[in-house]
Amino acid sequence: MRTPRYEQIAEKIVTLIHSGALKEGDKIPSIRQLSHELSVGVNTVKEAYWRLEDRNYITVVPQSGYYVKNRFNERVEPSEQDLKQLDPKKVTFCRVYSMFRDNAFDKNGISLALSGVAPDLWPKKRFGRYLMDAASDNDLLAAEYLLPPGYTLLRQQIARLGLSAGLTLSPDDIIVTNGCQEAIFLALMALCKPGDTIVLESPTYFNLLQLLQALNLKVIEIPSSPEEGISLDTLKFVIENHPVKVVFSIPNFNNPRGFVMPSWKKKEMAWLLEQSKIPLIEDDIYGDLYFHRRPDACKSHDETGNVLYCSSFSKTIAPGLRIGWIAPGKFYESVIEMKMLLNISTASVNQIAVACFLAKGGYERHLRKVKGKLIENVQSMRNEILLHFPDSTRVSNPSGGSFLWVELPEPIDTEQIYQDALAENILFSPGHLFSLQNKFTNCMRLSASTWNLKVADTIQILGRLCKR
Amino acid sequence: MRTPRYEQIAEKIVTLIHSGALKEGDKIPSIRQLSHELSVGVNTVKEAYWRLEDRNYITVVPQSGYYVKNRFNERVEPSEQDLKQLDPKKVTFCRVYSMFRDNAFDKNGISLALSGVAPDLWPKKRFGRYLMDAASDNDLLAAEYLLPPGYTLLRQQIARLGLSAGLTLSPDDIIVTNGCQEAIFLALMALCKPGDTIVLESPTYFNLLQLLQALNLKVIEIPSSPEEGISLDTLKFVIENHPVKVVFSIPNFNNPRGFVMPSWKKKEMAWLLEQSKIPLIEDDIYGDLYFHRRPDACKSHDETGNVLYCSSFSKTIAPGLRIGWIAPGKFYESVIEMKMLLNISTASVNQIAVACFLAKGGYERHLRKVKGKLIENVQSMRNEILLHFPDSTRVSNPSGGSFLWVELPEPIDTEQIYQDALAENILFSPGHLFSLQNKFTNCMRLSASTWNLKVADTIQILGRLCKR
Repeated sequence: MRTPRYEQIAEKIVTLIHSGALKEGDKIPSIRQLSHELSVGVNTVKEAYWRLEDRNYITVVPQSGYYVKNRFNERVEPSEQDLKQLDPKKVTFCRVYSMFRDNAFDKNGISLALSGVAPDLWPKKRFGRYLMDAASDNDLLAAEYLLPPGYTLLRQQIARLGLSAGLTLSPDDIIVTNGCQEAIFLALMALCKPGDTIVLESPTYFNLLQLLQALNLKVIEIPSSPEEGISLDTLKFVIENHPVKVVFSIPNFNNPRGFVMPSWKKKEMAWLLEQSKIPLIEDDIYGDLYFHRRPDACKSHDETGNVLYCSSFSKTIAPGLRIGWIAPGKFYESVIEMKMLLNISTASVNQIAVACFLAKGGYERHLRKVKGKLIENVQSMRNEILLHFPDSTRVSNPSGGSFLWVELPEPIDTEQIYQDALAENILFSPGHLFSLQNKFTNCMRLSASTWNLKVADTIQILGRLCKR
Repeated sequence: MRTPRYEQIAEKIVTLIHSGALKEGDKIPSIRQLSHELSVGVNTVKEAYWRLEDRNYITVVPQSGYYVKNRFNERVEPSEQDLKQLDPKKVTFCRVYSMFRDNAFDKNGISLALSGVAPDLWPKKRFGRYLMDAASDNDLLAAEYLLPPGYTLLRQQIARLGLSAGLTLSPDDIIVTNGCQEAIFLALMALCKPGDTIVLESPTYFNLLQLLQALNLKVIEIPSSPEEGISLDTLKFVIENHPVKVVFSIPNFNNPRGFVMPSWKKKEMAWLLEQSKIPLIEDDIYGDLYFHRRPDACKSHDETGNVLYCSSFSKTIAPGLRIGWIAPGKFYESVIEMKMLLNISTASVNQIAVACFLAKGGYERHLRKVKGKLIENVQSMRNEILLHFPDSTRVSNPSGGSFLWVELPEPIDTEQIYQDALAENILFSPGHLFSLQNKFTNCMRLSASTWNLKVADTIQILGRLCKR
């Protein structure tokens, strides 16, 4: 297949960045200018720039133009030696997690551990009204079970939302769950039995690792690029050499690294797994928290129902709601059965109130309102980190979500800093939580959900602890 | 140990009933009269009569006196031949359940399948107000996770309620769940791995059987008396001869049979399992729906934390709430860990609203109001069944809950009747659902949650179908 013109242009710019000809912060030609220089259509250049944004190479500054972004420059293609070590490992991983749990929500401390839109942006008046209406309705829906797959109006609205991620779901493809965690739990229960092997990008969401341990699953962690996610060549190698049961990925505003897997790569991954008859569990919980453009879902490239798409309103409306969903493709029957056996149904008032919020356009209005805040918060925290953390600290520069992934110069050990910070009533997620191997010990994940003077102080304190 | 005097009196009356000297409907001496005749204290006779009520031998009719109840007279102690057949069996049991699921909630039909207080008794105005208050509160509790073990005020209130069941729980013993089903799910996940054997009384709750199948557990079903539950001798035999991992029981207003296991038997079972180091999962979801006196929980006889006590407000307030709990005793750590990994937490507004309802005394007021209705409904449906069903049909006569267990003369097959009833838009639970063996095929479980002319007609139609 011939490489399309926009892809050629994008690749040329990538080469310039990698060679150092274009450096972080450099302005690149405007769309109009490059279109003129290369004698190609404006839309072709636009398409090329979109792809570069997706891959996190450039960023747009409104009313100014396109700029080269800060990027990590890590080698991610593993050596042959590395590949040999990629065998299924049992998960044993408890200590820090329970420490984390016990401390995570001290009211007096500052937590930089929770992700998504901060609770103080919760649309409480409107939601309170919807909840009361749902409870007092003569239809008694709120009192009864709203059995799986869940409330019809809610599933219709979720199907509508999916369009922006390139999904063409019918309400009948969707099952309502108690948050995204339950969606992933159901997918794993439906697909795996103890001893099975699951492949995931590394680093990854630590609650997932803990869950895999509880379900007695084995794990192969594939190194992922901080800009584009999992290495497909390595994935291919692993699939060919091990009995892989399922693959798990967070392709959009990845937890913890914040990258967006490029669309072409999503398509290739979906195709590869479909060919190998290995289901993909896709966690797209941060997808709606895009800063400029909604990235597509892997599921949008899935033609045979091989992708189990999981998401939730926990990061966008409020975590306390516990309303999430799964579109389990061809595994629908096993998942819905498991959901009924797990807890019969998801709470009815919550399903009804969220459905009304969505149906009346409240969700989009709310997102517009909170997104501006999130963009500001992420930039402010990023600047503050660069200012106060040790020299040569590297910070991710996400185009959505609320996380910053911070790489400190070695041999700084963030578990030590975690302990020191706890003593000052500050909580963050140390890097080693995100892998089963002794990796990322110089990293930390910080949440920029909230930004105020107290948080700014906290970053300064953390910077001081890191420099000690 | 000497048999106490009240127990001797109770046993004498049981002998009279078994011999036929006292028949169903016979009035027995008043407490004062018997106390005089036997020259024992009034309280001793009272205690004896309470025990007979517990064991379902007698019933009190207010302003009239004590009467002998209708009882099944089944042989439940299995023969040696039977005992040999009590080996762990794999669960394979799908067809009817999914049929059941697909049809259970047709709005136009009449469902006699759902148990507990009917949704039309849901305290909607009051609950709507609590929900709105919770959502609009400046504390933002509703927006945030109320992480396991769950909202403190709710756990305090649940601990308070437990007193009536003889439980002395601290709020710290309790973990909030999405209903009782999730509580049981968590207990099983924490205790068992695939291939393990679980023992239960037969017949039992069919959702449980289905869950055991999904978790790849093996099952030994122990015949239970329709009046007193599981046979302890058989339980002892099974424990001694098989690698039993856990025992499951619904001792109060048993699903489906409605019996209450006598208090002495609960104590013995708790002791036996403690000695054998086999945990007991106790499902007490119907306990608060007592007609006259709250039966104690098995857990009230548990001194070492060997009983995992599960319950919920689904049957008493409304199923759509999805608020239940587990008091997992010494298995607390594994259960709370599993709850976090399953779905992080239970929805916050729901936890808060239920806590307020309980704290303000709304629960007790509500129960008083609905209980009278439930007693009436159960009696009305029972009378209607005895009137319209084939001669020699036997119907349970529960002292709490909302179920009637109906035994039709053989060879009537209730699955056939189930099909015929569905054609008339009537739903009930056929008996064979409640066992893995080909048993109870002449039985059905009917819910008396609602009683009105339409339901009365439905009973007549069912009677006609049974007579065909």
